[in-house]
Amino acid sequence: MAKYSIGLDFGTLSVRALLVNTANGEECASSEYIYPHGVISDTLPSGKELPLNWALQDPQDYLDGISFTVRNIVTSSGVSPDDVIGIGLDFTSSTFLPVDENFTPLCFREEFRKNPHAWVKLWKHHATQEYAKRMTEQAVSGNEDFLKYYNRKISAEWMLPRMLETLEEAPEVYDSAYRFIEGGDWIVACLTGHECRSMNIAGFKALWSKEFGYPSKDFLGSLNPRFSSVAEEKLSGNIQPLGFPAGNLSSYGAELTGLPTTTAVSTACIDAQAALPLIRDPGAGKMIMCIGTSTGHIMTTDKFRPVPGITGSVENGILPGMFAYESGQICVGDSLNWFVDHCVPEEYTASAKKEGINIHGFLTRLAGTMAPGESGLLALDWWNGNRSVLCDYDLSGMIVGLTLQTKPEEIYRALIESTAFGTRKIIESYLESGIEINTLYACGGIARKNELFMQIYADVLGREIHIISSDQAPAHGSAIFGAVAAGKESGGYSDIFSASSSMGVPCSKTFSPIPEYSEIYDELYSEYLKLHDYFGRGENDLMRKLKSLRKSSDRAEKKENQPTA
Amino acid sequence: MAKYSIGLDFGTLSVRALLVNTANGEECASSEYIYPHGVISDTLPSGKELPLNWALQDPQDYLDGISFTVRNIVTSSGVSPDDVIGIGLDFTSSTFLPVDENFTPLCFREEFRKNPHAWVKLWKHHATQEYAKRMTEQAVSGNEDFLKYYNRKISAEWMLPRMLETLEEAPEVYDSAYRFIEGGDWIVACLTGHECRSMNIAGFKALWSKEFGYPSKDFLGSLNPRFSSVAEEKLSGNIQPLGFPAGNLSSYGAELTGLPTTTAVSTACIDAQAALPLIRDPGAGKMIMCIGTSTGHIMTTDKFRPVPGITGSVENGILPGMFAYESGQICVGDSLNWFVDHCVPEEYTASAKKEGINIHGFLTRLAGTMAPGESGLLALDWWNGNRSVLCDYDLSGMIVGLTLQTKPEEIYRALIESTAFGTRKIIESYLESGIEINTLYACGGIARKNELFMQIYADVLGREIHIISSDQAPAHGSAIFGAVAAGKESGGYSDIFSASSSMGVPCSKTFSPIPEYSEIYDELYSEYLKLHDYFGRGENDLMRKLKSLRKSSDRAEKKENQPTA
Repeated sequence: MAKYSIGLDFGTLSVRALLVNTANGEECASSEYIYPHGVISDTLPSGKELPLNWALQDPQDYLDGISFTVRNIVTSSGVSPDDVIGIGLDFTSSTFLPVDENFTPLCFREEFRKNPHAWVKLWKHHATQEYAKRMTEQAVSGNEDFLKYYNRKISAEWMLPRMLETLEEAPEVYDSAYRFIEGGDWIVACLTGHECRSMNIAGFKALWSKEFGYPSKDFLGSLNPRFSSVAEEKLSGNIQPLGFPAGNLSSYGAELTGLPTTTAVSTACIDAQAALPLIRDPGAGKMIMCIGTSTGHIMTTDKFRPVPGITGSVENGILPGMFAYESGQICVGDSLNWFVDHCVPEEYTASAKKEGINIHGFLTRLAGTMAPGESGLLALDWWNGNRSVLCDYDLSGMIVGLTLQTKPEEIYRALIESTAFGTRKIIESYLESGIEINTLYACGGIARKNELFMQIYADVLGREIHIISSDQAPAHGSAIFGAVAAGKESGGYSDIFSASSSMGVPCSKTFSPIPEYSEIYDELYSEYLKLHDYFGRGENDLMRKLKSLRKSSDRAEKKENQPTA
Repeated sequence: MAKYSIGLDFGTLSVRALLVNTANGEECASSEYIYPHGVISDTLPSGKELPLNWALQDPQDYLDGISFTVRNIVTSSGVSPDDVIGIGLDFTSSTFLPVDENFTPLCFREEFRKNPHAWVKLWKHHATQEYAKRMTEQAVSGNEDFLKYYNRKISAEWMLPRMLETLEEAPEVYDSAYRFIEGGDWIVACLTGHECRSMNIAGFKALWSKEFGYPSKDFLGSLNPRFSSVAEEKLSGNIQPLGFPAGNLSSYGAELTGLPTTTAVSTACIDAQAALPLIRDPGAGKMIMCIGTSTGHIMTTDKFRPVPGITGSVENGILPGMFAYESGQICVGDSLNWFVDHCVPEEYTASAKKEGINIHGFLTRLAGTMAPGESGLLALDWWNGNRSVLCDYDLSGMIVGLTLQTKPEEIYRALIESTAFGTRKIIESYLESGIEINTLYACGGIARKNELFMQIYADVLGREIHIISSDQAPAHGSAIFGAVAAGKESGGYSDIFSASSSMGVPCSKTFSPIPEYSEIYDELYSEYLKLHDYFGRGENDLMRKLKSLRKSSDRAEKKENQPTA
């Protein structure tokens, strides 16, 4: 009798569920649930307005999404619920919420409905920049041990600066919280009734390491005396690797999913990182890039080596016995979407419509007739700041080379190229640190659908890129973790490597670099590096100044929440 | 009996005629003729394809335009042709053509129809960059005297590098040419039958000065032995100031215009410079900016002072006894037009249509609700290179500060601001050279119509700006020169000052700087200067490299002439 595992992929705007055959990795059914509340950045459902750079979510959306999608895939596949042996899940991160002793979100309580700090702070909640800066300065001045795993920088996207933000801006929420818990860990708690924290998420997003545990009380207390006990009081100490069985479904979990209480639940994973086990023999020297609205570059090595500019490395973070690295580009498909939404003239929209193709396809086709260098443009890919290498959210995008002859498809191509240069910079950081990258894989919507995009990447990187033929890479990887949590006796696997070998996904296509194009891109890349360092490393502080001018404009804050036209 | 003068303003795309009452400057009638052949940059009418960066015109368009517009304004105003005492004219420059002994353009001859060098080379013919560079290097190495009037740089937009281009690329055209003649001087020759070269144009565009005449034979011969005699063989020696009576209408001129042979014709002026006499008491300390697709800043001083970065200063160039200076921004309204044509989404176009306003008006209104700094953007205004200060056509535009929140109206505003910063840089170059600017005037379409634009200029410059209430400033100024050519006895004037005092135009509005906005712009301007010098003065040579990469792409050249979508 075939057995199945379910992967749940909690993205920024929706959750997707995927039913995978544990014997061979066949994807049997999938379903998506779009969060009704999406990203809350303007006003809370209670009507309260939010300041600039806030990004919250409603946790009820996650629960409703599980119920909808899991029932949907089980029904549509005709699989018996009893044959679903495991569930794994991945979640955007750090996306966390304060909960009470029963793991009920504080924002569900009437008294906190209007308090933004009681809601889920989404990974792209960027109002925390100042807290992250303060925390970094304090850690650097104290030369804290844990810094070595984080390139000596603490990101505004991580958990602790945001918890400090809550403590200082909403102490009533801080005091009432039994735990601050990652979205992924919260789902695990909801499904099993147990608290079982993901080593993967704690390591990458909460400064926890196998070597040092959480940061010391001294360090935390130096930020704010009340913060010294944050780890023991507000964060779980039960921290387990990926594929670890957090427990079986509780009766509540069974009711929510329509699955039996025999179904095992794995610890949670950070979204893009769940794609790694899709490579059938994951290990040192292999990088997988998940390319979508943003890109995650996932790597493992057998030995820790600090990589300048890479924001996190975690022992046992994904694969047992290996150090996991994630580096990310925060804005990849997003900058193309921005361009399409804001900068494409009516004439193009109309032509695309007439041809019956979407505007991305239309622009891609026009951009595909050009050779490297032909646009005369070079861009820096920092439309949403820089998450890797520079780790600075106050950086912004730029385009050089604009002329009266510049056409929309040329800008579109330059934006694609800029993200490829950003990837090359990240890969070179690994190489310079003595970490080999022998094989490059790509997955995600753009990797699967946009051949021009991937050819440009192959040309810019001067490397072959192998495309993983799954449209649901993180969900598929989560299902692999679910099968490991279920264990061999139940029809799953004893470890990630054996699960990956059976349930991983073959490559559908390989893009090879065109040598004469790579040569031109080598030139352009050296120019990209010059701009990267000039604007990114402080020689010209313009981008930060522009952001601060923008923030200091009261009118900008007010207008942020208004439609423009 | 009232007397009238006609000003003819030959722009890039059309000629406009204006009938002005010589007693009081009243604008009585105007007419425009759009050149059927426009700017020829893709293929000659004969079908021959042109290389990248070429820009030609068909001189027949000018003649047809005179005939159409002059008859039109005389008829529509009801004025008797006999009361039209003078004609003045201004022309884009350097825009010139090769002609035979009868002043017939060589491109009218069958044998030269397919030779691009036989046509009118328009000011924006930028294929000559290499010739200009070579000429500059030769002049600098020989420390040529004339360099002092041109900031030691020879522009690709001037006459001599382009004549050298003809000599070396099409010697058959060079040899057959009796004269290479500026468009304005050619019109004067057509109307009067006499050759009478404008001191204004020769001084600004052909390296002629009262002090030195044309460049020496030695210098010219060092560029190419055959070029040594270019001045005496191919250029006129009869060089006269503005307002000088080149002659009365010949019978051909009378037939062309429908005016009597008693009508006097003035020497020709460079387009924007003709606006200066609209100030009723022009003189030292007063600058007028003609703001349209490009901007010309016109100044006179009583004593020559070299201004770093200002491309030309000419003794008696506009007003008798004064040094005239022109500095220009090559791309002002043009970059806004580019933006509107290529970067405005359907949603905006539709909203503007619904409101019944044009898209510039729509974007201006949205941009007008913002405070300085609020867009978070800073741009360099070099979409068409830099004509002043840096005098480098290989520079290009750039925008910094782009984010996923950036809206079209924010980019639109940043483009306006960038041109204001460019103007401030020019004004500061004058001030640093000891030339005072006490009063600032503006004319041209944008100055008259776009209040936000002018307020931003007042704020960025920290100065009052007085708007000249004419919609046809250069044509009006040309009519003033026409009245001077006619002379006092015919109902005109004996000199430009007295003509200007009667026929000049009052100011309709003054924009005053808002101090708190000027303060923010001071900050932004200092950032603009940093970028200006970094990208413009060689520290980062990226823009030139991008242009050269673009040029080296064969496919780019081929594609340049094809529609995009």
